[in-house]
Amino acid sequence: MFKKILIANRGEIAVRIIRACRELGIATVAVYSAADRQALHVQQADEAYCIGPAAAKDSYLNIAALMSVAAATQADAIHPGYGFLAENADFADICAAGGLVFIGPAAAAIRSMGDKAVARQTMQQAGVPVVPGTEGVIADVETAVTVAAAIGYPVIVKATAGGGGKGMRVAGDEAALRKAVRQAQKEAELAFGNADVYLEKFLEEPRHIEFQVMADQYGQIIQLGERDCSIQRRHQKLVEESPSPALSPALRQQMGQAAVAAARAVNYQGAGTVEFLLDKHGRFYFMEMNTRIQVEHPVTELVTGLDLIKEQIAVAAGKPLSVAQDGVQSRGWALECRINAENPAENFRPSPGVIDQYLPPGGFGVRIDSAAYAGWEITPYYDSMIAKVIVWGRTRPEALARMQRALAEFVIAGIETTIPFHQQLLADEVFVSGDFNTGFLDSRQLSGDVGQQILLKTE
Amino acid sequence: MFKKILIANRGEIAVRIIRACRELGIATVAVYSAADRQALHVQQADEAYCIGPAAAKDSYLNIAALMSVAAATQADAIHPGYGFLAENADFADICAAGGLVFIGPAAAAIRSMGDKAVARQTMQQAGVPVVPGTEGVIADVETAVTVAAAIGYPVIVKATAGGGGKGMRVAGDEAALRKAVRQAQKEAELAFGNADVYLEKFLEEPRHIEFQVMADQYGQIIQLGERDCSIQRRHQKLVEESPSPALSPALRQQMGQAAVAAARAVNYQGAGTVEFLLDKHGRFYFMEMNTRIQVEHPVTELVTGLDLIKEQIAVAAGKPLSVAQDGVQSRGWALECRINAENPAENFRPSPGVIDQYLPPGGFGVRIDSAAYAGWEITPYYDSMIAKVIVWGRTRPEALARMQRALAEFVIAGIETTIPFHQQLLADEVFVSGDFNTGFLDSRQLSGDVGQQILLKTE
Repeated sequence: MFKKILIANRGEIAVRIIRACRELGIATVAVYSAADRQALHVQQADEAYCIGPAAAKDSYLNIAALMSVAAATQADAIHPGYGFLAENADFADICAAGGLVFIGPAAAAIRSMGDKAVARQTMQQAGVPVVPGTEGVIADVETAVTVAAAIGYPVIVKATAGGGGKGMRVAGDEAALRKAVRQAQKEAELAFGNADVYLEKFLEEPRHIEFQVMADQYGQIIQLGERDCSIQRRHQKLVEESPSPALSPALRQQMGQAAVAAARAVNYQGAGTVEFLLDKHGRFYFMEMNTRIQVEHPVTELVTGLDLIKEQIAVAAGKPLSVAQDGVQSRGWALECRINAENPAENFRPSPGVIDQYLPPGGFGVRIDSAAYAGWEITPYYDSMIAKVIVWGRTRPEALARMQRALAEFVIAGIETTIPFHQQLLADEVFVSGDFNTGFLDSRQLSGDVGQQILLKTE
Repeated sequence: MFKKILIANRGEIAVRIIRACRELGIATVAVYSAADRQALHVQQADEAYCIGPAAAKDSYLNIAALMSVAAATQADAIHPGYGFLAENADFADICAAGGLVFIGPAAAAIRSMGDKAVARQTMQQAGVPVVPGTEGVIADVETAVTVAAAIGYPVIVKATAGGGGKGMRVAGDEAALRKAVRQAQKEAELAFGNADVYLEKFLEEPRHIEFQVMADQYGQIIQLGERDCSIQRRHQKLVEESPSPALSPALRQQMGQAAVAAARAVNYQGAGTVEFLLDKHGRFYFMEMNTRIQVEHPVTELVTGLDLIKEQIAVAAGKPLSVAQDGVQSRGWALECRINAENPAENFRPSPGVIDQYLPPGGFGVRIDSAAYAGWEITPYYDSMIAKVIVWGRTRPEALARMQRALAEFVIAGIETTIPFHQQLLADEVFVSGDFNTGFLDSRQLSGDVGQQILLKTE
C-alpha cells in the first residue's frame, strides 16, 4: 500500500480523500493556492504546500509545481480528485514518467474516452448501445443530411472535443441542420481548436442515468448500480439519487452489464462512471464515460456500503477489488443535494464572503461532505459548491423527508446558499413523483424563495 | 399519527427526537430550564417553553409544569427521551390521566421491570435465564447463607430498588456474606427507603450484551440484534458496538429469542432493551430491562437501517411495526463513542465552559448526534455528555479506523473533552482484539494524554 499520497485538489474532495487516507493509514500531502492557505484540507493534511497564486491555472493546474512538491515530499501517488487535472491524460503520463502512481485509469483509457467520436465507435464495437448517428466525424454537410434523413429529426450536432454545451446545436429539419453544422464547427474551432463535429439523434426529455464501475489491475470489473442525475440546471447536476426511480430490475441489470462492457472495452482500471441517456420508451444509449471519481459518488457509497475512494486507492496500489459482483448489495435509497454559495433568488449569482456561522446537520442517515467552517472565506476563484448533503433512507419517501429535515437544520450564515432552492425542489410534486427528466428543472421556476433558515442565537 | 409532540428532555436526545418528528411531519414542543434557554433543542423546535430553574428537579422533572405546557400547546403525546422521567411509571399514569400518549411502554411494564426482584421472578417464569440466586427478597441472613452454599461463591447482594451501584456488595465467603447482607440492607434503606435485598451468583469478568426490542400494540415483538456495552468506566458505558465480537450466530439467535420472551412476559410496547451478562463460558443471564430508548440506540440504527425513534413514535400512535422479524437485516459494524465534557487527564473531572470552536467530523459512515455548537455554554447542571460519534464500517476494523479518523478531525475548542481518551482506547490492543469484558477499562490506565486535536486557524 502507498505510504504517502499527494492530493492535487482542494475543497470537499480534498477533504474526502484525506479522510480515506487516514482510514487506510496513508500520510497526506495537501497543495493549495495563495487564496486557500486557511482551507480545511490544508489544516487537515499531514503536510501542505503552497503551489501558486489563486488562479487555478497558476496553482491547481500547475503540473510542474505539483511534480516538484511530490518529489520533495517523496509521495508515492497522486490523487487528482475531480475537475482540474483528473481527466488530463498528459498529466497521467507525466506522473508515470516521474515514478508516481496516478490514481486513475491508464492515460490511454482517458484518451479514448476523452474523444467523443472515438468513444462512440469503441462503444459500438463493444456492443454498447449508442444514440443513432454518424460513424465518427462528419466529413461534409451532405453526409449529415443523409444520416439525419435515415435516423429522423430532431438531431444534435456535437463537437468531438466538446464539453459544457459548447459546439452543440439541435436541428429540427434539413435547413436547420445545414446551418447547425456550420455553426457548431465554427464554435468548436474557437472553443477547442478542433472543428470536428458528429451527429446524433436528439433524444427528447431523456433521463440521465449513470453507472458506477470499479476495476482492478487483474481484469475484474464490477458495477455498483446507477445514479439518476436528471435534475440539472443548464447541464449542471444539482441533485443525484440512487437507485433511479425509472429503472426496472431487468433494465438495471442490462444497463449495468453495458457499463461493465464499456469499461472492459478500454481496459479500464480504477473508479469510473458510464453515463447513459434513457429515453421515454425505456431505451438507453451510451453518452460518455467519466474517467475519474465523481462529485456524486457518495450516493453509491450509502446504498452499497463500499468506500469508493478507499477502493480506488487500493486498486491503484495493485490490490484486487475487495468485493466481487455478486457480493455487491444495495440497501435503501440515497439522495445528494449540492449546496452552492449562490443566491437562487438572483438567478444563482455567486455569493462569496466569510461564513459567520456554520453548523452542519447531523443525526441518522445524514452525511456531510464539505470543507466549510465558521470563519472560512468563500473566494470567487473556484467552483461555488461548498457542501454536499447526502442522506440515506429505507425508501425514497424516507430519504426525501430526511433531506428536508437536514436542509432545514443546516446553519450557514454570512453568505447566500442554494439551500432554499433545494427545499423548494424537494417539495415539488413532479420531483416527489420521481417522474422527471433532464428538461424538468429548466421548465420550472424555482425561486428559492422559501425555507426557514435557522440562525443560532448566542449570547 | 400525532400532530404535536412535547419533548420532556434536553440535549442531544431532544434534538434527536425533533429530527424524527420533522421527518414524520409532526410539530414539536421543547421545554427548557433557565440554564438552557440558548440550547439547540430550544432553537430547533417549533415551540419552546421555560419550565423552571436550572436544577432538574425544578424543571425537567417538574411534572406539573410539563403537563401544563402540554395542555397549553395541545400536544398529543410526550416523548420522555432517556433519563429524567423516562422510566417513571407514575409519570406515565399521569400522562394517560391527562389524555396524553406517553411514548413508552405501559406503566405496568415499567413497574414490573423497575423492581429487580420482581423482574427476576417474571423472567424465570418466562424461561429467560437469570443468574442463579435467591427466589425474590432475602427473608433472613441464614437463607442467604444456604443459597450461597448451593450456588457457590462469590455472590453478590443487590438492593431490589437498586441502581448506580448503590446497595450492592460482593462476598467471597460466608463471613463476608453475613456482613454484606447487613451493609447492603442499611445502604439500600438510606438510598432508596427500601431495605429489600436479594442474592445472585457474582459473575467474574462478564460481557455486557443487550438486545434492542421493539413492540407494537398488536402483540408483534421483534428484536434488532445486540449491542456490546462492555466498555464501561465505573458502570458508565463509554463505547458501544453492534454486533458484539463475542457472539456466534447461534448464541445471537438464542439471546435474541430470550429478549423477545422477556418483552412478551411484561406485554411490552415500544422500544426497550433487554440487558444480559455473558460469562466467559458463553452462558448468558438476564440482568435488567430498560423500558425506554437508550443513549446507544444509534449503533442499532446504523446496522439495521431502522429509525428507532420514528418506529417508537409510530407504534405509540397505534401503527403496526414497519418491519417483521424476518425483514430485519443487519449490515456491517457500528461503533459509538460518547464524548463528555470532562478532562480525562484529571480523572474525568467535569469541564464546563463555552465552546469556542465546534466543527463535527463528517464524510462517509460518520454520524454525529449532538446539541453542541460554537458559542454554546456547557453548564455544570446536567450530564456531561455533549456528543455521540457513531460510525459504520463494512467490518469491525473499518469501523475502528473510521472512528479514529472521525475523532482526529473533531474540533471542539474552549472545553476539555474525552476525545483523547477514546483515541487511546481505540489504539489499545485488547480493545482492538475484541476480547474484553466489563472489567477491562477499570484495569487499564488510559490517561487520555494522546491525540492531536485540530484547532481551526482563521484570520
